[in-house]
Amino acid sequence: MTLDCNTRYDGGRTHPRPLSRQIDLMAGIVVTGASSGIGRAIAIRLAADTVARPRPTPTRMLIHYRCNRAGAEATANEVRGMGVDCQIMAADLSKIPTAEKFAQNALDQMGPIDTWVNNAGADVLTGEPAAWSFHEKLRWLLDVDLCGTAAVSRIVGPAMAEQDRPEHGEPEPGEPEPGEQKQDEKERGEKEHSENAGEGAAATPSMVFIGWDQAAEGMEGDAGMMFGPVKAAVMAFAASLAQTLAPRVRVNTVAPGWIQTAWGESTSEYWNERATTQALMGRWGRPSDVAAAVAYLSRPEAGFVTGQTVNVNGGWNRKFA
Amino acid sequence: MTLDCNTRYDGGRTHPRPLSRQIDLMAGIVVTGASSGIGRAIAIRLAADTVARPRPTPTRMLIHYRCNRAGAEATANEVRGMGVDCQIMAADLSKIPTAEKFAQNALDQMGPIDTWVNNAGADVLTGEPAAWSFHEKLRWLLDVDLCGTAAVSRIVGPAMAEQDRPEHGEPEPGEPEPGEQKQDEKERGEKEHSENAGEGAAATPSMVFIGWDQAAEGMEGDAGMMFGPVKAAVMAFAASLAQTLAPRVRVNTVAPGWIQTAWGESTSEYWNERATTQALMGRWGRPSDVAAAVAYLSRPEAGFVTGQTVNVNGGWNRKFA
Amino acid sequence: MTLDCNTRYDGGRTHPRPLSRQIDLMAGIVVTGASSGIGRAIAIRLAADTVARPRPTPTRMLIHYRCNRAGAEATANEVRGMGVDCQIMAADLSKIPTAEKFAQNALDQMGPIDTWVNNAGADVLTGEPAAWSFHEKLRWLLDVDLCGTAAVSRIVGPAMAEQDRPEHGEPEPGEPEPGEQKQDEKERGEKEHSENAGEGAAATPSMVFIGWDQAAEGMEGDAGMMFGPVKAAVMAFAASLAQTLAPRVRVNTVAPGWIQTAWGESTSEYWNERATTQALMGRWGRPSDVAAAVAYLSRPEAGFVTGQTVNVNGGWNRKFA
Amino acid sequence: MTLDCNTRYDGGRTHPRPLSRQIDLMAGIVVTGASSGIGRAIAIRLAADTVARPRPTPTRMLIHYRCNRAGAEATANEVRGMGVDCQIMAADLSKIPTAEKFAQNALDQMGPIDTWVNNAGADVLTGEPAAWSFHEKLRWLLDVDLCGTAAVSRIVGPAMAEQDRPEHGEPEPGEPEPGEQKQDEKERGEKEHSENAGEGAAATPSMVFIGWDQAAEGMEGDAGMMFGPVKAAVMAFAASLAQTLAPRVRVNTVAPGWIQTAWGESTSEYWNERATTQALMGRWGRPSDVAAAVAYLSRPEAGFVTGQTVNVNGGWNRKFA
Repeated sequence: MTLDCNTRYDGGRTHPRPLSRQIDLMAGIVVTGASSGIGRAIAIRLAADTVARPRPTPTRMLIHYRCNRAGAEATANEVRGMGVDCQIMAADLSKIPTAEKFAQNALDQMGPIDTWVNNAGADVLTGEPAAWSFHEKLRWLLDVDLCGTAAVSRIVGPAMAEQDRPEHGEPEPGEPEPGEQKQDEKERGEKEHSENAGEGAAATPSMVFIGWDQAAEGMEGDAGMMFGPVKAAVMAFAASLAQTLAPRVRVNTVAPGWIQTAWGESTSEYWNERATTQALMGRWGRPSDVAAAVAYLSRPEAGFVTGQTVNVNGGWNRKFA
Repeated sequence: MTLDCNTRYDGGRTHPRPLSRQIDLMAGIVVTGASSGIGRAIAIRLAADTVARPRPTPTRMLIHYRCNRAGAEATANEVRGMGVDCQIMAADLSKIPTAEKFAQNALDQMGPIDTWVNNAGADVLTGEPAAWSFHEKLRWLLDVDLCGTAAVSRIVGPAMAEQDRPEHGEPEPGEPEPGEQKQDEKERGEKEHSENAGEGAAATPSMVFIGWDQAAEGMEGDAGMMFGPVKAAVMAFAASLAQTLAPRVRVNTVAPGWIQTAWGESTSEYWNERATTQALMGRWGRPSDVAAAVAYLSRPEAGFVTGQTVNVNGGWNRKFA
Repeated sequence: MTLDCNTRYDGGRTHPRPLSRQIDLMAGIVVTGASSGIGRAIAIRLAADTVARPRPTPTRMLIHYRCNRAGAEATANEVRGMGVDCQIMAADLSKIPTAEKFAQNALDQMGPIDTWVNNAGADVLTGEPAAWSFHEKLRWLLDVDLCGTAAVSRIVGPAMAEQDRPEHGEPEPGEPEPGEQKQDEKERGEKEHSENAGEGAAATPSMVFIGWDQAAEGMEGDAGMMFGPVKAAVMAFAASLAQTLAPRVRVNTVAPGWIQTAWGESTSEYWNERATTQALMGRWGRPSDVAAAVAYLSRPEAGFVTGQTVNVNGGWNRKFA
Repeated sequence: MTLDCNTRYDGGRTHPRPLSRQIDLMAGIVVTGASSGIGRAIAIRLAADTVARPRPTPTRMLIHYRCNRAGAEATANEVRGMGVDCQIMAADLSKIPTAEKFAQNALDQMGPIDTWVNNAGADVLTGEPAAWSFHEKLRWLLDVDLCGTAAVSRIVGPAMAEQDRPEHGEPEPGEPEPGEQKQDEKERGEKEHSENAGEGAAATPSMVFIGWDQAAEGMEGDAGMMFGPVKAAVMAFAASLAQTLAPRVRVNTVAPGWIQTAWGESTSEYWNERATTQALMGRWGRPSDVAAAVAYLSRPEAGFVTGQTVNVNGGWNRKFA
């Protein structure tokens, strides 16, 4: 049940561009599983947001992938084309030690993390795994989506909680210096109040997980019994992580509905009909719809949002046709 | 149990600035209850968003208020200062006929509505109503927050569903003309898919309601028994309206937690301690936190989000101290 | 918008049977709106449960109704036929003072209350109200289902919290006497632990509200916009009351789906199709389904269940046909 | 990370009592993980319910356990003492093939299943696993609680859906014979309506899962990050199974809060304080509290309840001390 790919984990040495020397002043963004689909859309959207800020912060981005190096490079090139420093890093998150090494390498290379998006998830609908048994698929999904993601987050989250927070642009007069920021949580919470007011203020770093809008309510068949538990588990992990890391890191989940990715595009008339009927909006979702929600939750303006789930599912259609 | 104020409903004649002749091309934004606090923050934030767009759409805004004309004018002036056409309109939403007249006048004067925010709510914590009985307060809250808001929404929502949608900037080549847009819902849903892709594309108009994050779970005491039912009712109305108006209008709710408005600022040490302890973020929420969520839900990029509630509550703290 | 009926509120004097002299030892059960449908099924079910106990507690029941005296008598006669003392009492709960007088009279006549079921709700689907406007219906529903129920509960709930609790059968040796029971809540909670263990032990009195399973998620059209808010409000009130009265009174909600009552039986093919399709169980619910859930929540064995909602809706069908 | 115990899986040959020859007429009940704690309480409660029926159905019960044979025997002996046929069967559910073999053996030996309770769960708080790493614990929990339970349920559930349903006592005149019951789902749903009405009617078989009330909302620390995902996954699996097996099998979840089992009894003052403070009822839950909810959901009277979760948590305390 182990999958091979041409690009094996290389300990984080896959960075084709020299590291910025301004690392301390930069806002680090990491998106896992960003070689295609929703992950790629998130990376591109977060890069666009960075550039569009009135006083753009120098930002560097890390694109994680497992096998699809060409896809990761394509994502990275789009990001670089927008003027954002970007590197790629391969890691098979289905192995705990590899996942942990990836997390540590990412932290080492990126410096302070502003935004971390846990988007990587196993694909059991296409390729070799499509032929696996239910239990093999469930296990593979748990290995990557839940256990691997948890391994990464349990290293990255506490590090984000401890880090000196990057500034968005120049601090306002009277703003605290990074070095002054290690206070007890209570004080920090209060200080936050004034800090976030200014555009240049430091923001609480943010983690976003990707869930599934149908997980808790259930879906019939093998797909429901497989993706439901796995994604419900991811969302529950995020909720507990939010309780654990607050108020130093915000943790939220975006729960997509039926999104037209590679799978959706090539799918049957049945799924086309189902996706467009079960969404109130009468259409498939797009990766950019999910990316926009991730972008909102990652911005300083969402500084009072943590432990929440935003469904991006076109609204569940409860009407009776 | 009827409250008086100096500025009575005037049938919508309170527009101190001449109407734009470009009304057909403009994106209309309406915020009810925007003479202070969260409503004012929303109005200002939506104006700022409008101006910050890469190709700004000419926008006009309507500020609704009940009594506090000076406050409404102050909000409007801030909005105008940002370059957005803005007028004010008074109406006591606790009366169904008045609420309905207000809705009709707003539609008449604004033209196509892009964004409608139902923020108006009764204040029973300060002023005369603070001395009322539980049942008088509950009734007053139901009159304004639920029944008045429903009366407004049941006129505005269907009108938004039928209107020729304003374009955000120039339509892309191949984009449908407004006049072509009255199709059956199915087709529209599919067309949406391509429409929203371009930055200049027309977007599905959006309504946002304001709820309360604690409504469904409950809070002890009179406040819980009063605000809980009223805000749960508002949120449920929004959910049913979303089912009713899809896919032509998106309807969502922002559910604030403890927000430091006029009430919060002057409040006791008890409430200060409670608000900062029950939020994972360890601080009071700010009106701008709520406004940012409203702004996200109102943007075309949230075009696949409807029927949802976003809690802006700092995360409910479930830890045991 | 006021409805008339032949039997007006009579201050609680409508009790056709002499009061038991054993009132102190009896477990009082009150079901509002029990002249037909779900309310009648609940009354009959609770009576049956009482009789079926290994060591039956002498029980008295009060059947509340608004207009349908014949129906209330029919319910009461069925209950009496099972060997349970039963009286009826008329009250129009749409008026706060009447609702409050009813609550006080019920307490006076029944003595300690074991189980109180707030089932009364306005009927706007049949009879005169069916022709009313949306806003008249909404108001009438709020008056009865929410405000009237709240008025009753805010008198009955605290009284139940303060009352010396009726014993279920003989107290076990070492059980506290009723007079010893006014302790602080902490101690009571702990004592509960041992009390409930024995079959003869006193149980925490229980209130049950009736909600609607679709309230929070929404339903399209006027019905959704009317029943959704009202029932969501009732459920939220129950949640806040649970927070308020714990641990002295348990408060829960049963949320029915499509139930075949008088309305359901005479309904159209459309509704028949809808009800049987939207429930996973493929059938209409029955009043007895709802009654069984109320009975469970009312029993001492549910002594650790409070603030909860149990959907009795056949399971919401999320499959795609 | 594999645990050893003295009693290994024996292919279901651990049945110390001869099989009943009346197997076809009996209602089979299976409780997994019933050698102690909540599982034992469930087994005893279901046995008591069986005996207490007005016209008791001959019932046989199967007690599953992993290692604690003495405990399983003790449970079985209590059940037998109540007059219910009972056997025990060992199986380590952490291995998919073993879990599947157990499911098949249970079906073979029990005949038609009336009630199946998936209570088995890994214990990582005491014994050897208490010293394991987070990831080892998480894996072990997933292996047993989710994957093993899914393996069992995916064999047992479909078998329950296909089986000729056991009758509760004598069928009423006009009741269908078991052989007539394989109809399409639609018809079945409608027939259900009349079937369940009579006391002697066949009931839809029921599966119950055990979740955790805090799973979706989250809890801080390793315990939250471990039990939250696992139990959320179990609840989501149950929801999808309910969608899959309806209307032939009902599937529900009971979600306990802090329950005083072996762990609870020996626990620290901290946990004692936490458990009694976070529950509105001000006390620890008891295994019998959970068992009562399982019993309700398993009874024919809950025939319109599927896909639901009942929290047995004393009510989550949201008050601010």
